[in-house]
Amino acid sequence: MKGPPSLELQEIYLPVQEGLAQVEERLQALARQELPQLSQPLGHTVVYPGKRLRPALTLLAGQLYGRPSRHVLAMALAMELFHTATLVHDDLVDNSRVRRGRPAAHTLWGPGPALLLGDYLFSLSAQLMASTRNLRVIDIFAQTLKTVSGGELAHNLRQAQERRDRQGYFQWIGAKTASVLAAATQTGAILGHAPPAGVKALKEYGFKLGLAFQIVDDILDFTGEERELGKPVGSDLLRGALTLPVILLLEKQPSLEDPEAIQQAARGLSHSPIMEECYAVASEFSSQARRSLEAAPPSPARSSLEALVAYNLERKK
Amino acid sequence: MKGPPSLELQEIYLPVQEGLAQVEERLQALARQELPQLSQPLGHTVVYPGKRLRPALTLLAGQLYGRPSRHVLAMALAMELFHTATLVHDDLVDNSRVRRGRPAAHTLWGPGPALLLGDYLFSLSAQLMASTRNLRVIDIFAQTLKTVSGGELAHNLRQAQERRDRQGYFQWIGAKTASVLAAATQTGAILGHAPPAGVKALKEYGFKLGLAFQIVDDILDFTGEERELGKPVGSDLLRGALTLPVILLLEKQPSLEDPEAIQQAARGLSHSPIMEECYAVASEFSSQARRSLEAAPPSPARSSLEALVAYNLERKK
Repeated sequence: MKGPPSLELQEIYLPVQEGLAQVEERLQALARQELPQLSQPLGHTVVYPGKRLRPALTLLAGQLYGRPSRHVLAMALAMELFHTATLVHDDLVDNSRVRRGRPAAHTLWGPGPALLLGDYLFSLSAQLMASTRNLRVIDIFAQTLKTVSGGELAHNLRQAQERRDRQGYFQWIGAKTASVLAAATQTGAILGHAPPAGVKALKEYGFKLGLAFQIVDDILDFTGEERELGKPVGSDLLRGALTLPVILLLEKQPSLEDPEAIQQAARGLSHSPIMEECYAVASEFSSQARRSLEAAPPSPARSSLEALVAYNLERKK
Repeated sequence: MKGPPSLELQEIYLPVQEGLAQVEERLQALARQELPQLSQPLGHTVVYPGKRLRPALTLLAGQLYGRPSRHVLAMALAMELFHTATLVHDDLVDNSRVRRGRPAAHTLWGPGPALLLGDYLFSLSAQLMASTRNLRVIDIFAQTLKTVSGGELAHNLRQAQERRDRQGYFQWIGAKTASVLAAATQTGAILGHAPPAGVKALKEYGFKLGLAFQIVDDILDFTGEERELGKPVGSDLLRGALTLPVILLLEKQPSLEDPEAIQQAARGLSHSPIMEECYAVASEFSSQARRSLEAAPPSPARSSLEALVAYNLERKK
């Protein structure tokens, strides 16, 4: 059960088309206006053909109750820059040399400049988020940075045995992905003047969609095509990351311990029934995400948030 | 002219002794309360015998007009964590393996965890700064993060020829050190309800003290003793950083270009008159810092801020 066939992303984003175009424009302007030395690395990093999922979520959540503040746009941009900053640092931590089919920042400019570029992107994001003049939004931003970096750090320092654990995996992806999507929808809801119950529901929606989204990413790492993914198939495991497909495999074969033996066993994963099990887990979180929207007033924005849940389960990249 | 002999740091800090003790206590509590995996790296990084200059500046600036808000303490702690975060990242960028006589974070836990630890320290700092509920302070925080990371990044991407330039050096240390000391005094002044002219003067004081402070650091890198510095003598140049002593040397010997020839020529620096020239530059910034305090009401806090200027020019580590 993967839900109904998804609309194309562009169609889903229709209610916030204008806002997303402005986000894109401001990302491009960013690369032009900064210090001359920074222009090229910034441009390479922030201007690319991507899903722009986080700003879309902020804008859609901001529209749900029909009264978005003018600050929603700045927040959408802040979420995209925040996400980009974490990607730049993650690629460095994981030594992933390719991102979205292009060289990662550290591949082009070296590890030192890439680290500083990530910090700089965080600062741009922090300035935009502060420009909302909303202390709740500012608190959520600081908390999300803490959750993301603390979660990745704790995961990095965990023992190998703990990383094979399903609950540990959910904690990890909850911190690194779901918390950011939750921040995107929650801040959008706050700046869109949603009532308290609506803010809570949208945060829950973002978190559950985030879990489902990361699981599908981890599935596609095995079943996708390199050309579509923009990175080699199976690259997570190659750099030692144990994601849900491998964790389910190890639940069935607990004696597998040697990294090479795990690599070997994982080769059959893409055509194994384990992938359907993974989709079932993602579907369960997706249903929870969809249910969080039930109390929201029907609107094009709500339909789009629902469609995103379905889109995620169908996507090939 | 290096000014009058300095008081010991502890004596200078007397007016804010209690606040600094609380900062120390809360740093230690931080290492105890966080996720178990994070406790050791956090403890190693934030609890150490150091100058605690930035929190002292925030607390002193907060007292200057006699009415510090209860948020000054959180801000002082935020400044120390911010500073520590930048050190963790800098040591990684520069591949400096020793900090304050102990292994740097990346030496102990590897580059990936050290990068994430720095991000995590930024997030703790951001949470504390947000807890002041003061939007001006929040703006200054975001701007300072931008100045520090953008400045280091721009410096990293600069051509070798531009790094020999005195103005480029001042820009660099203005961004990496002076802007942080300026943020410490400016936020302290704001939370201490200083009048607008007082806030401006204290920002100026922090910035000029910061320039003088970094120049003395760069002098001591050549003239200090390894035991006192907690790192090898001349280590800046060894990792390719051209600081004021070397820049003045290269102004006198513009044909020096080969890194090994520069290393060779720099061996005589510690007993060269160039060091007095460097102190003269630091003294000029110090005078400007002292003058910024003239309009502030006389108080023990003001005397301490003045004494810090003198202390800096006299210190041996």
